[in-house]
Amino acid sequence: MLVTRRLNLLLRTIEKTHNDSTGDKHASLSIAVSEPSEPKVVTDIPGPKSKQLIQELDQIQNVGAVHFFCDYDNSHGNYLTDVDGNVMLDLYTQISSLPLGYNHPALINAVSKPENLSTFVNRPALGVYPPADWVSRLQNVLVSVSPPGMTQVQTMACGACSVEHGLKAIFIKYMSDKRGGKAPSKEDMESCIANEAPGSPPLTILSFSNSFHGRTMGALACTHSKWLHKLDFPMPAWPHVRFPDLKYPLEEFVEENRAEENKILEEVEDKIEEYNKKGLPVAGVIVEPVQCEGGDNFASADFFQGLRDITSKRGLGYLMDEVQTGCGVTGKFWAHEHFNLTDTPDIVTFSKKMLTGGFYNKSSFRPKEGYRILNTWVGDPSKIALLGEVVNVIKEDNILDEVKVTGDYLLSGLKQMQVKYPGMLSKSRGLGTLSAVDFNTAATRDKVMANLRKKGVHTGSCGEKTLRFRPTLLFQNKHVDVFMERFDDVLSQFEK
Amino acid sequence: MLVTRRLNLLLRTIEKTHNDSTGDKHASLSIAVSEPSEPKVVTDIPGPKSKQLIQELDQIQNVGAVHFFCDYDNSHGNYLTDVDGNVMLDLYTQISSLPLGYNHPALINAVSKPENLSTFVNRPALGVYPPADWVSRLQNVLVSVSPPGMTQVQTMACGACSVEHGLKAIFIKYMSDKRGGKAPSKEDMESCIANEAPGSPPLTILSFSNSFHGRTMGALACTHSKWLHKLDFPMPAWPHVRFPDLKYPLEEFVEENRAEENKILEEVEDKIEEYNKKGLPVAGVIVEPVQCEGGDNFASADFFQGLRDITSKRGLGYLMDEVQTGCGVTGKFWAHEHFNLTDTPDIVTFSKKMLTGGFYNKSSFRPKEGYRILNTWVGDPSKIALLGEVVNVIKEDNILDEVKVTGDYLLSGLKQMQVKYPGMLSKSRGLGTLSAVDFNTAATRDKVMANLRKKGVHTGSCGEKTLRFRPTLLFQNKHVDVFMERFDDVLSQFEK
Repeated sequence: MLVTRRLNLLLRTIEKTHNDSTGDKHASLSIAVSEPSEPKVVTDIPGPKSKQLIQELDQIQNVGAVHFFCDYDNSHGNYLTDVDGNVMLDLYTQISSLPLGYNHPALINAVSKPENLSTFVNRPALGVYPPADWVSRLQNVLVSVSPPGMTQVQTMACGACSVEHGLKAIFIKYMSDKRGGKAPSKEDMESCIANEAPGSPPLTILSFSNSFHGRTMGALACTHSKWLHKLDFPMPAWPHVRFPDLKYPLEEFVEENRAEENKILEEVEDKIEEYNKKGLPVAGVIVEPVQCEGGDNFASADFFQGLRDITSKRGLGYLMDEVQTGCGVTGKFWAHEHFNLTDTPDIVTFSKKMLTGGFYNKSSFRPKEGYRILNTWVGDPSKIALLGEVVNVIKEDNILDEVKVTGDYLLSGLKQMQVKYPGMLSKSRGLGTLSAVDFNTAATRDKVMANLRKKGVHTGSCGEKTLRFRPTLLFQNKHVDVFMERFDDVLSQFEK
Repeated sequence: MLVTRRLNLLLRTIEKTHNDSTGDKHASLSIAVSEPSEPKVVTDIPGPKSKQLIQELDQIQNVGAVHFFCDYDNSHGNYLTDVDGNVMLDLYTQISSLPLGYNHPALINAVSKPENLSTFVNRPALGVYPPADWVSRLQNVLVSVSPPGMTQVQTMACGACSVEHGLKAIFIKYMSDKRGGKAPSKEDMESCIANEAPGSPPLTILSFSNSFHGRTMGALACTHSKWLHKLDFPMPAWPHVRFPDLKYPLEEFVEENRAEENKILEEVEDKIEEYNKKGLPVAGVIVEPVQCEGGDNFASADFFQGLRDITSKRGLGYLMDEVQTGCGVTGKFWAHEHFNLTDTPDIVTFSKKMLTGGFYNKSSFRPKEGYRILNTWVGDPSKIALLGEVVNVIKEDNILDEVKVTGDYLLSGLKQMQVKYPGMLSKSRGLGTLSAVDFNTAATRDKVMANLRKKGVHTGSCGEKTLRFRPTLLFQNKHVDVFMERFDDVLSQFEK
């Protein structure tokens, strides 16, 4: 009988998970070994089944962004299987949002645990009626990995909402300071209902060229990467400044790069002055520790310290957007930990590999009144149940150390390729496994990516002509070898 | 052994679910019978355990909005149990976001099904790498309940994001029309990156007083209910117009109410003209079919037809925000179906009881290019797996008919109370179980709600002095009786 078969299947899954997660301390890594050993390509990608499904989906919504359809039941670890049976080494991992790859036993375990069942079934209005285990979940999961110096955390459903509400915390703090901590006036409360000053003040946020922070209006106003994200949408006239354009190799251009960053820090100060004078005061600065969508653009610790100094001096909020850089990909849990800032950022946003959106904030950026930072769901406890397993694996299997090892190996491989193919590759760069290399042209990059996919390696692009690497946290040297062999092969065909 | 115990527990849950869902066609309703038969209050609410947890949560985030902590494992159907063991009839249901109440067997089944396991474990970047069953899930779930005349649907993670992206679809359509369908120019594409015209045009959206559409910048710009949602945030200068203020009982004020609505439709036209002349053209109108957060404000079908006429005539988008009114609560799947509009709205947003956010749109409001309406997750297939069960229950158990019956019974009860307590209650109103009654003062309403909670009935407020009812879809006459008995009791104490 079907139901009995399903029960047996489920039982086997749970028993397997139980053995895996208790019998071997490094279960997660040993499970990763049971992945395919290499890619297997059996059709074009997208293949006939994907094409058929794309055609069907086209009846319901725009399919311009769909690459191919996936068989998630049969995807494992670092290997993604599509509906046509092609098995790909996945170096892009759902736009950098899979911490432990596909079907990790710890996550299967989280869904299968009877004590988690009600968490998956009864999604609450978390900010008003939290579940009994909410405080301990927050403490054991989100607080346990909070950036140094930050004890406050607020969950949200996605990355854009995390940025939106992080910005709101900055605006609230700015105006609260301006009121000298006093309660808002009747005029404040009434005027804001109509979107008018003084209750809705003409504040602005300073962001950087090539940034990406999300696609809702406030987050999009701080985003300056591609026209497809922005065209046709009314946007507030908020200021932005160039992001540093560093010369590589870094060790050869120390002085030039320092000068570039100092110049931009000056431009930040000038822009703030300019907007303050215009009557559009800057309330805060938003920045990614590594600009991802905009081209994997790195800047130095000094630059980020400079932004901290400017915002601290002026009493402005400093929002570090770690939606793509957080959760250990750089070899530290949060990328900005590499900067050793003298004082922590005021807001740190997260999402993607964290499985839940949200932000950490300093106590001073915590709203005084309830209901200021809220919505119906404010996140989802079932995502914290999953994230709890991820955090355990990261801690128990020393994943951050693994990421450093693999990241170094990947970067050294990229540098070797760059030496071998100097006309095509430049600017190999990375922090942990968050790494990238530039091509001579966008067309070459796109062609290389297409050829890599034919060999069963799925990659992602960013910026104008950059190939970015966003593997799982369980990406290891052997996976680098699988990639690098095929990368070399593809590049060598271009040289001919 | 602990794991064995858990396995047995899970097995029993699944077997129970299996029997429930196949043995009796009306399993969902018969299961609702296994709820408690009445509330049970054993401590103050919040009780000592809730208070302790609130204190602990206060170390991590603002707790101003937390009412009490819940024991979701031991909540069933229409009855919510808190951590202190108080069992409450829940007429607010997580801010109107629970379709089938607590721990419904169909939802437990969805989480327990082995074939759904990978859906809960592997959340994809849905707009780029959809799962094999995505098209059939969309067809069987979201498309199967689409508003009349709408075949296109886009998922999103939450209500605010649904509104934000629905508005973006309106802006894209407006500018695409303006370009005569031609591709955007180089100037369009470059200027939008800097938030500047022509690529970022100074378009606006017209909304209504007392509206609520969400808390991200674009959605919040259309929201005009309470200062706590809005204070301190910079907002675009978008226009808004009064929402009709109908006199009750409706049958006695037909002419007055028609005049009020016609006057407002004129104001809408005037406001659009005014903003067009100001160089801030109105691209669309956003409205709730019943204003919820703003006070359960109803308007007539003629009013909503009037808005359709104005927007059609002017080529503007018409967004019907059904985040709180959709999923059957009014006795039709979508509240705007009650209006029998000559032409469907252009965008219909949903979330809350739908368990996933998203919006339906007319084909003409579908963007031509890919990547225009997108983000990393664009929703979550696991929520569609849950929603699929909800839709099945609604269809198989003829829930919409049940909602009509219970809604009529609830409203007639409210009207009787209004007759009995004329100094305190007015404006009993409702559509299905989405219903409300006004109090003479906010203080009285708040006191009545507090006293109801002491008797184990949990309710929600809205507007200035309104009590709103937002029960589950499985709310029945017997639950109305439980409420009404206690309501009468509480109100009678005020009269003394």
